[in-house]
Amino acid sequence: MGARYTAAAAFLDFRAAVPRVNTLTVELGSRSYPILIGSGLLTRADLLARHIPGRDLLLVTNTTVGPLYAAALKQGLGDRRIVEVSLPDGEAHKTLATVSRMLDVLVANRFSRDCTVVALGGGVVGDMAGFAAACYQRGVAYVQVPTTLLAQVDSSVGGKTGVNHPGGKNLIGAFHQPSAVVADTDTLKTLPPRELRAGLAEVIKYGLIDDAALFVWLEENMERLLAHDPDALTHVIRRSCEIKASIVGRDEREQGDRALLNLGHTFGHALESATGYTKWLHGEAVGAGLLMAATMSHEAGLLSAEMVERLRRLLERTGLPTEERSLTPDTVLEHMRIDKKVKSGRIRLVLLRSIGASFVTADYPDDALRRTLEAHLG
Amino acid sequence: MGARYTAAAAFLDFRAAVPRVNTLTVELGSRSYPILIGSGLLTRADLLARHIPGRDLLLVTNTTVGPLYAAALKQGLGDRRIVEVSLPDGEAHKTLATVSRMLDVLVANRFSRDCTVVALGGGVVGDMAGFAAACYQRGVAYVQVPTTLLAQVDSSVGGKTGVNHPGGKNLIGAFHQPSAVVADTDTLKTLPPRELRAGLAEVIKYGLIDDAALFVWLEENMERLLAHDPDALTHVIRRSCEIKASIVGRDEREQGDRALLNLGHTFGHALESATGYTKWLHGEAVGAGLLMAATMSHEAGLLSAEMVERLRRLLERTGLPTEERSLTPDTVLEHMRIDKKVKSGRIRLVLLRSIGASFVTADYPDDALRRTLEAHLG
Repeated sequence: MGARYTAAAAFLDFRAAVPRVNTLTVELGSRSYPILIGSGLLTRADLLARHIPGRDLLLVTNTTVGPLYAAALKQGLGDRRIVEVSLPDGEAHKTLATVSRMLDVLVANRFSRDCTVVALGGGVVGDMAGFAAACYQRGVAYVQVPTTLLAQVDSSVGGKTGVNHPGGKNLIGAFHQPSAVVADTDTLKTLPPRELRAGLAEVIKYGLIDDAALFVWLEENMERLLAHDPDALTHVIRRSCEIKASIVGRDEREQGDRALLNLGHTFGHALESATGYTKWLHGEAVGAGLLMAATMSHEAGLLSAEMVERLRRLLERTGLPTEERSLTPDTVLEHMRIDKKVKSGRIRLVLLRSIGASFVTADYPDDALRRTLEAHLG
Repeated sequence: MGARYTAAAAFLDFRAAVPRVNTLTVELGSRSYPILIGSGLLTRADLLARHIPGRDLLLVTNTTVGPLYAAALKQGLGDRRIVEVSLPDGEAHKTLATVSRMLDVLVANRFSRDCTVVALGGGVVGDMAGFAAACYQRGVAYVQVPTTLLAQVDSSVGGKTGVNHPGGKNLIGAFHQPSAVVADTDTLKTLPPRELRAGLAEVIKYGLIDDAALFVWLEENMERLLAHDPDALTHVIRRSCEIKASIVGRDEREQGDRALLNLGHTFGHALESATGYTKWLHGEAVGAGLLMAATMSHEAGLLSAEMVERLRRLLERTGLPTEERSLTPDTVLEHMRIDKKVKSGRIRLVLLRSIGASFVTADYPDDALRRTLEAHLG
């Protein structure tokens, strides 16, 4: 009895000393992988050793995130060969030329097929590092260590990697699943408020797509999130990843349901692309795109004006912009046409039947699209 | 009875008028696809309509093959939107920059996800067009129309796509299976003799890997092949594709058996890379690599000297070079180390226990490798 008691006490001590780690799994058969969410994960050598394979690591970060977290992460990664690449910060650098630079570093260091690329940063770093991993030697392992809310709730999960082309966003890329996603919520403490708000746009998206309860929770708790309340942030990261993992698990390559995750994105990508990727953060453009999708759903007779207004109020409370007066409807329409969601010449859109109920369609009145663009643009 | 007789006669007429098409299937579940082998396939509108999907086609060819066959193929493709890209001919142009150019054309023409890339040419065209298809919008369809023996027996089948890097061959790429392979044996009539011989090196490889009977058949029929005998060529194309399809079907992403297809390639790639991809044709380098692998197998005590000599005689009768006196063993060894077959720092090689019996190993005496390099290099 005495021995058993001691063991139990040790277990309790361990629980008290180490913060709780939330673990989800993206179920994709032999390509399944865990998402770890919690505080202090960057320096948890035990977890990093278990989830980051390989003796040779390419640590990809950027000039903003690197100085804050690269040293801590390297410490946690222990005794391996680590080559670091620091990319310039920002969507404007998300190009094939930047990926080519990473590939040069992999070759120059004679990295073999069993190396691992570790992406430390936001969505831009993750998308590019993942694409470099997809292309190097026809695919090596990579691990996402997202440091922005947007990357933690969305871009780090699901295996979409790639870069922009002057003609459109994410037009070049690959589906390549990571080996693990390690989301350390502590990194959000240094996130600029504007980027936190941009990430919350993607969280609102999950509520609209699939979870009315999450949407209501956001209406009730937005101030806690904006104040960086760690429990509130952990809740929305976990719930967002659950929804995304579930959708990706049943439609990895976007043949069906996965397209729902593009709610607001066809509009948003066009805003980003038409303004040269410099004016709008991706999440901000998605936020405005969400309202455009809701307006469009209303214009098509699917969604009540009251639901559109609830969304508008939530976006405004989040501090997100909802219009772009410097662009004309024609310009944005032209940019929408090159988006990947176009099928046989017709733009496919995700629309809403209510908050929490979305669907993909190419069957809508063209004048509803026109009126939607006119309502939000100059 | 009269009606039945007429139908049978019509069927016989049809068989007489249209040359026989050999069809194999690469079995990969939802990604399975056919390989069609035969005479006159380029202009068979019925087959092309059935096997090439999409309304918008990017026809990729090169400045040598395009003038010979592009017009005929376009005729066969019928009433679709076809944009043609003609690449400079040769392995030296197999770069990320060339693929980037194809992606620019896809974007500039607003091609959507349901377009198809058609690769008309040899291995270089097929590898690059396939990689562009893999990367555009995270993957669009492509069809291989190989016009060299090497492409028909090897590179067009199996979904390996990619480009070279100054630091090594095929270091950047993707696994992306075609929707179909259409091998028209008539295109071999215009193939320069040197390229025919280079393609035969890959055929000899299949005999060495897995099929002693094919090797013996080659010993008995090499002169027919070198004289472009259509039946002999069809026989080796079909048999090579059968062996490759079977191996790819059980190991798509080279986790195991598929590595056997690299027999001679680690040596061969190093010869190509160390001479800047200008001196050796790929198939020629593979031919020399086959003899190096056999020599190495003998040096490691696995293969009799008599077998090595039979291979040397067959390569010489094929008109293939077997040594490179301008390179030192150290230079070639350095280039071998960056090859994709390196695992945890050790070069993995495909070796032979006899003709038709091969295996992958990293467990060999280093001095056997050294003696092999010294025997074939300067």
